[in-house]
Amino acid sequence: MTRVISKAEILSTLPGIDLVESMAAAFVAYSSGLAVVPPVGELVFESPPGDVHIKYGYVRGERYYVVKVASGFYDNPAIGLPTGNGLMLLFSQATGVLEAVLLDEGILTDERTAAAGAVVAKHLAPRQLNCIGIVGTGAQAELQLRHLAAVSPCRDVLVWGRNTARAEGFCERLSDSPFRITIASSIDALIDEARLIVTTTPAVSPLLDRLQPGTHVTAMGSDTADKQELAASLLAAADLVIADSRAQSGSRGEVFRALQAGEITLEKVMELGDIISGKVAGRTSSEQVTIADLTGVATQDIAIATAVYERLSNTHQP
Amino acid sequence: MTRVISKAEILSTLPGIDLVESMAAAFVAYSSGLAVVPPVGELVFESPPGDVHIKYGYVRGERYYVVKVASGFYDNPAIGLPTGNGLMLLFSQATGVLEAVLLDEGILTDERTAAAGAVVAKHLAPRQLNCIGIVGTGAQAELQLRHLAAVSPCRDVLVWGRNTARAEGFCERLSDSPFRITIASSIDALIDEARLIVTTTPAVSPLLDRLQPGTHVTAMGSDTADKQELAASLLAAADLVIADSRAQSGSRGEVFRALQAGEITLEKVMELGDIISGKVAGRTSSEQVTIADLTGVATQDIAIATAVYERLSNTHQP
Repeated sequence: MTRVISKAEILSTLPGIDLVESMAAAFVAYSSGLAVVPPVGELVFESPPGDVHIKYGYVRGERYYVVKVASGFYDNPAIGLPTGNGLMLLFSQATGVLEAVLLDEGILTDERTAAAGAVVAKHLAPRQLNCIGIVGTGAQAELQLRHLAAVSPCRDVLVWGRNTARAEGFCERLSDSPFRITIASSIDALIDEARLIVTTTPAVSPLLDRLQPGTHVTAMGSDTADKQELAASLLAAADLVIADSRAQSGSRGEVFRALQAGEITLEKVMELGDIISGKVAGRTSSEQVTIADLTGVATQDIAIATAVYERLSNTHQP
Repeated sequence: MTRVISKAEILSTLPGIDLVESMAAAFVAYSSGLAVVPPVGELVFESPPGDVHIKYGYVRGERYYVVKVASGFYDNPAIGLPTGNGLMLLFSQATGVLEAVLLDEGILTDERTAAAGAVVAKHLAPRQLNCIGIVGTGAQAELQLRHLAAVSPCRDVLVWGRNTARAEGFCERLSDSPFRITIASSIDALIDEARLIVTTTPAVSPLLDRLQPGTHVTAMGSDTADKQELAASLLAAADLVIADSRAQSGSRGEVFRALQAGEITLEKVMELGDIISGKVAGRTSSEQVTIADLTGVATQDIAIATAVYERLSNTHQP
């Protein structure tokens, strides 16, 4: 019998799931060769404008295969709907039976994306951290910061966005968090203060073109061939450049832009799963500049969907 | 609010839907260029053996986009489960909102495939028909014949299968149908008697290597690069060769095998939607041999999912 799981039920499971641990395992699985992840399926709509991504795959030896549909329809806010939507489907790897329909409306994609930022920070941010910098003031910026609370003791935050009113809204929404948040007077002030910077904007030209020594940047915003938050020269100058998927970096994200600009070659790019597993060394000194470019991989969807479903299947247990 | 629709609810709508008309429109949409249908997504499993196809797309100007997952796990019968499974998802083209989850467990794929056979027979079978020949005795063979009742007045049927006990089971299952069914003594006897032949087997080498003048063959069985029910020479000799998708014929089905064998070129192959719309002439004499090769297209899934959902949405109307 297929179980249909509502967004409310899904939300109720999240406090009981160690998403950071779950995402770390997902990246290791991705880089280990155990995962079967075909290229992303895509549908594009012109009027109204929208795009749909279908991510699907499985990890050999696990119970489920997962199909995720995630959409962005950019005129939705004008009619009072969120831009993003979607669902996740869990099927048995042994029989093809549809075990669960997760009607998450896109929130699991938001959560797994944010938790991935915390995984990266845990492995690559400098140990001594006086200030976290958040570039962007939207829903993903908020979720990124909330997930960082679990992996860093730093509680001082600078936030920067083009729109000051939205930056104020960001501070208000996070007034229940453990963070002391200040709006940065400029992006330069943020660059000078923060040794962990997370960029979460849909910018199509670089916002950051210099970094202080000892900084780690996680670039979340760019997940297409067009978007770019970091100057390509920053990737060339960095001591370490990491991607969640080297394969996807060939066609999207900051790495793609730097490859296109001729600033780096793919040989410079290490894979996140190999850093987490210890196969490749991560940060080796407090003075290094490290950059992680995340475009999102299907093993994250497999991991979060499986964790939510198994949590709900076990709720009768003590 | 997403509506989740059970297999029982789906089955209840089918008698009220003109599937033949619906599939005809789906093929016309496919061939018209109004449909956006990316390549089929695929996952393959080794142990136990299985494969999953993800078909998705939309027709410009319609309300929904559709994602279908259909699986075949070939060890399932040994544990009492059907081989096939799957579901269909309907999303709004305007907002990306998931409107309906159709938990059809693969039956809508079976139905739309069978109805497509009736569409082909309506447009290409000779007018004077004394006998229908069914090659194969499985669930799809049964459904093909049931759908033919709506488009042909012929009630005399010869069935042939390798396994006589299964052929007897086929006759028993269809004892409630309007057809008079006889088990053919040989496939040659069927070829000699039937001017409409439907082949529904997973054969990987040709079952039919000759045809009488004035015969139409609908080849349903082969939908991969390996399967083949018709000798390639039959396609070379035919007056008309039709495919549901010329694009898919480049990699699967009878046309693919005949192309590979060098027996025909793709120029010989007409598209079903163009026959239905009248853009290309169909059968022009009772003596012609015509062959249709169907591998299944996403517009069929869009059409049947939309028809089922709209039927359920309108059940409160008189």
